[in-house]
Amino acid sequence: MTATTPQPAPAAPLGRIPVLAVQPVLEGGRWPSKAIVGEAVPIRATVFREGHDAVAATAVLTRPDGTDHSSARMTLIRPGLDVYEARLTPDAEGEWTFRVEGWSDPYGTWSHDAELKIRAGVDVELMLAEGVKLFRDAAAREGTPTRLADVLFRAAHAMRDSNRAPLDRLASGRSAEVVEAFDAMPVRDYVSPSAAYPLLVERDLAMVGAWYEIFPRSEGARRDENGKWIGGTLRTATERLPQIAAMGFDVVYLTPIHPIGTTFRKGPNNTLNAGPEDPGSPYAIGAPDGGHDAIHPELGTFDDFDYFVAKSRENGLEVALDIALQCSPDHPWVTEHPEWFTTRIDGSIAYAENPPKKYQDIYPLNFDNDPDGIYVAIRDVLVKWVEHGVTAFRVDNPHTKPLNFWERLLEEFRANHPDVIFLSEAFTKPAMMHTLALIGFHQSYTYFTWRINKHELGSYFAELGGDWASVMRPSLWPTTHDILTPYMQQGGTAAFAIRAVLAATGAPTWGIYAGYELVENVPRPGAEEQIDNEKYEFKQRDWSRADGYGIARLLGILNGIRRQHPALQRLRNITVHPTSDDATLCFSRHLDAKDSPTGRPDTVIVVVNLDPYTTREGVLYLNRTALGLPAAEPGTQLSFTARDEISGETFTWGEHPYVRLNPHGQVAHVLAVEHT
Amino acid sequence: MTATTPQPAPAAPLGRIPVLAVQPVLEGGRWPSKAIVGEAVPIRATVFREGHDAVAATAVLTRPDGTDHSSARMTLIRPGLDVYEARLTPDAEGEWTFRVEGWSDPYGTWSHDAELKIRAGVDVELMLAEGVKLFRDAAAREGTPTRLADVLFRAAHAMRDSNRAPLDRLASGRSAEVVEAFDAMPVRDYVSPSAAYPLLVERDLAMVGAWYEIFPRSEGARRDENGKWIGGTLRTATERLPQIAAMGFDVVYLTPIHPIGTTFRKGPNNTLNAGPEDPGSPYAIGAPDGGHDAIHPELGTFDDFDYFVAKSRENGLEVALDIALQCSPDHPWVTEHPEWFTTRIDGSIAYAENPPKKYQDIYPLNFDNDPDGIYVAIRDVLVKWVEHGVTAFRVDNPHTKPLNFWERLLEEFRANHPDVIFLSEAFTKPAMMHTLALIGFHQSYTYFTWRINKHELGSYFAELGGDWASVMRPSLWPTTHDILTPYMQQGGTAAFAIRAVLAATGAPTWGIYAGYELVENVPRPGAEEQIDNEKYEFKQRDWSRADGYGIARLLGILNGIRRQHPALQRLRNITVHPTSDDATLCFSRHLDAKDSPTGRPDTVIVVVNLDPYTTREGVLYLNRTALGLPAAEPGTQLSFTARDEISGETFTWGEHPYVRLNPHGQVAHVLAVEHT
Repeated sequence: MTATTPQPAPAAPLGRIPVLAVQPVLEGGRWPSKAIVGEAVPIRATVFREGHDAVAATAVLTRPDGTDHSSARMTLIRPGLDVYEARLTPDAEGEWTFRVEGWSDPYGTWSHDAELKIRAGVDVELMLAEGVKLFRDAAAREGTPTRLADVLFRAAHAMRDSNRAPLDRLASGRSAEVVEAFDAMPVRDYVSPSAAYPLLVERDLAMVGAWYEIFPRSEGARRDENGKWIGGTLRTATERLPQIAAMGFDVVYLTPIHPIGTTFRKGPNNTLNAGPEDPGSPYAIGAPDGGHDAIHPELGTFDDFDYFVAKSRENGLEVALDIALQCSPDHPWVTEHPEWFTTRIDGSIAYAENPPKKYQDIYPLNFDNDPDGIYVAIRDVLVKWVEHGVTAFRVDNPHTKPLNFWERLLEEFRANHPDVIFLSEAFTKPAMMHTLALIGFHQSYTYFTWRINKHELGSYFAELGGDWASVMRPSLWPTTHDILTPYMQQGGTAAFAIRAVLAATGAPTWGIYAGYELVENVPRPGAEEQIDNEKYEFKQRDWSRADGYGIARLLGILNGIRRQHPALQRLRNITVHPTSDDATLCFSRHLDAKDSPTGRPDTVIVVVNLDPYTTREGVLYLNRTALGLPAAEPGTQLSFTARDEISGETFTWGEHPYVRLNPHGQVAHVLAVEHT
Repeated sequence: MTATTPQPAPAAPLGRIPVLAVQPVLEGGRWPSKAIVGEAVPIRATVFREGHDAVAATAVLTRPDGTDHSSARMTLIRPGLDVYEARLTPDAEGEWTFRVEGWSDPYGTWSHDAELKIRAGVDVELMLAEGVKLFRDAAAREGTPTRLADVLFRAAHAMRDSNRAPLDRLASGRSAEVVEAFDAMPVRDYVSPSAAYPLLVERDLAMVGAWYEIFPRSEGARRDENGKWIGGTLRTATERLPQIAAMGFDVVYLTPIHPIGTTFRKGPNNTLNAGPEDPGSPYAIGAPDGGHDAIHPELGTFDDFDYFVAKSRENGLEVALDIALQCSPDHPWVTEHPEWFTTRIDGSIAYAENPPKKYQDIYPLNFDNDPDGIYVAIRDVLVKWVEHGVTAFRVDNPHTKPLNFWERLLEEFRANHPDVIFLSEAFTKPAMMHTLALIGFHQSYTYFTWRINKHELGSYFAELGGDWASVMRPSLWPTTHDILTPYMQQGGTAAFAIRAVLAATGAPTWGIYAGYELVENVPRPGAEEQIDNEKYEFKQRDWSRADGYGIARLLGILNGIRRQHPALQRLRNITVHPTSDDATLCFSRHLDAKDSPTGRPDTVIVVVNLDPYTTREGVLYLNRTALGLPAAEPGTQLSFTARDEISGETFTWGEHPYVRLNPHGQVAHVLAVEHT
């Protein structure tokens, strides 16, 4: 992508068969839609034609080298609106494309007309003769496998046999094996391709993963005999890695590890005046010891960091680093590059503000003052961390920096370090969040944290799996170091269990902030974040108490279920099912066998009691099609087996099962449907 | 538009200020949106920026020659979604473009921050000093009118005066005249343009008009003394023109006037065997006397046609001709160009079918057999009619011909005969109807005819004025020669009055089929069209009976109101208002003064009793903003004057007026709002 003026899609007339409204396409294809390797991408288009003849459509997926990879005949999913769909699955990373071909379907036309006319006794011999010619021409095409050609020649022969009844001859032309033969080698007239739209295929972690957030200085922190804090280090933090791995997480995410400024340093609980022992906020980055490319001396050295990365990998964990592009007044850039900041008319450097609030411990960069210089500096900082083994960045407040900066950075990383994942921490309006995803952020925090009741969660999960899912991959967090909602403050252990189940199954990526296992739910008065927040102080935790809450065990179970069920590793496959109870949420995720990496269908039903205080009971109104279960036959009732992957229980369910969930016992079912 | 493979919008990075989702844009701008000369086009975009600084957007309209015509600062209409809108009005036909520019607004930033900070006593002198610099720099820009510069210099001076209270100095920087000065000459930083999207500007009749349909052979038809029919001619048909003109119509539309085939000619009431006196369907086109480029000898000659056109023009009427691209077996093309039809395997030419139904009097053209040859022939036919004064074509069943044929034809007419209007008679699924509009049909028949009840009509009118209104201009017909719905069959004179009001006000283009004045509502048994349909026979009407029904008078009144009210000549300005009665529909159309050709605001409220049998009464819940009425002030009630343009009565209404409408008296109010 080079710096050009934006242009509309070039004028181009319709093909012989109109193909319009191809999806997933955003902004006319100016930016690519996204998928991960192995993800079945739903490709849709509006395809129709003049008159009564049959029309059909094929979706085609093309590799980065321009060769066609796979194609599929599309299904008419909305007949009134002429919308067709097929799913195709890229099998490697890179810049793929896809297109939709509309075409005229002479077999479909003949089959439809012959059925109507021969039944009505109209043009019987003529229709059969035209069928014979169509079949023979089709069979004689170059490249037709002998087996299929034989089917067509045999059918043509049977259709010619004037000793047989017309309807029998017709049946020979419309048999299952003939339909299969034409499906396998369709006669496609007037093939009319859409534009080839871009599809960026990325690695699994771009969409699927379980993240665990720590403040490394808290991991191993303790008071010495005099009550003075001895902070944790990158070395002591490695001791937590086996526990994190044992709970099944994929990524350990470190809040900033750089030197911390002392000017206007914040004290405990966000007080304005830190004492000499207060460690300061790791988000006030930069001190004489260095800036974003340095490590806080109290945490260790680059050798220690390399050791942390190596131990993480031994535990099967990737390392994500927080990137907060702001400087304390003590950051080396402030003296080396004062032009990177805003100098006010009185000569002072502007600190961060949200008028009338002041954040004097933070100087925002002014990207407009030297876009190239700042870009190169930040790019080099990130590359340095990548060279030390960081494979993901959690980007703090990307929505306070120019979007064209991010687009340039993400493009360069896509070219040179395509495996590095960027998570956007933009809690803001939809346009910003969607656009950050559009221009290359791999995933995004969401509004999940503030979606509490059944309607909010159901509609939000459906939205996250909807149109924007082709670029924005959600990351669901029940809490973060910045967020402790009233629900979490008040709902006790049950709330922590409920929100863990929702986050683990509501999207393919979720994250847990350290201390969740201990149900840390006391807020700072008047704030929606933890009291004694480890942003401003050391935090020593007694992990031995975790067993008593059962949450750590639940996190492990949930990550195990996620790993076992490919349906939970996909975003666009969600269906929300109605329930009779206001606090009982039910949704499912389904993968057809052909879309599943296992080659088997996979269906998970999640039922959650959202009420952390009261046992709830009710009826689920399941959509059997969405569950991949066979259509109802007249006079029969649906019956299927579902195994609760949390409790191990097995249920035999119909279409309207009864459920009862107890916040102080089992808050949710996560059920695997048995496909027979 | 040349024949190229479709392409996505080219990759291009964001500008400094993101501008996305520009509207009206379809298919990424591959085809133009449309407007008519003098139509205010609503231009929308999603515009936002990083951080807290102020952002703004400007819509810019560019002439076909590439020069900027006009621009307007956009209003934030959906704050949560960052959607901005402005309306701009092209003043000539041609291929215009429009774009949206996002920009950083330093005055907006200063004004917002200064207000918050100075009120809070923070950075008072610094904020004022920064304001002074901003104002002085703005005033000193080249091209700033002296008057505006003076305003800014004066304000800067007042802000510097440290003898004044800070809030007074702040007020000097935020006065109405300063805001006006910055609005007139904004300081725009980092101007970031969207793509320039195409906007095709066409003449008035493309969207606005009243059409009147006749079968010319019926106009003046009579039986001689022996009871034998003497058909009307183009000459006798001119005698009807003054009446049509007197009712205020703009277009007289003629069903086909070409020679009619005799092979398989249809008799009265669509019977299969015509008698020797039966004139046949004018849609079975072609005989030894000629085809689409000929005139039925019984109707007259080209001289007569020219006379008809001349008399129409004298009466202020344009002439529209029906184009039905199909041939009777007797059409000259059948022998001259048998390759233009489908030859079946037995050597016969395929007639029209909708299996198992047969239409043996019609041979469809097979465009795929000789696309270029058929294209040139039809193009030449149409050009011939244009050379004889036809300025509009009503295209019969365009959805049964390939769309790429239409696109090529419409492109050539746009280049060579841009004033010729094409009306699409495609009663079919939305994708086809929308796409015909997208590729160049100026207007389209609609589902209006089958939308009967309040919900159907309200939502359909709103839909017609919605997104697709940027390309598809609806033409509303209460009946046609093919359509007589049960509502029209059963509802008596009231139904004819009700549907006339709806059609005349529900969209800027409407049409009436001759005989409507006589409440011709008897169907052929089992069909939803007229008995003794003049498609198959002559029809002599006694126009002297029209006065008794009052419908002709109503048509004249409605066309008069339409002409008087520019709001009724626009499509996208509709609002449907709730009412308390199930059969009382209320909607309004409003134009702001600046969007109105008269320079005055224009607002029309339409209230219709949809029940043709019963008097209905109820309350309207009017949306005052949609009516262009001033916002309510606390403690006051809305009161405005509305004049019923049908009855002449004047009402003083509040926000919830009571109405009562009698199907046997006044079926509707069409009210002009008095703006004071």
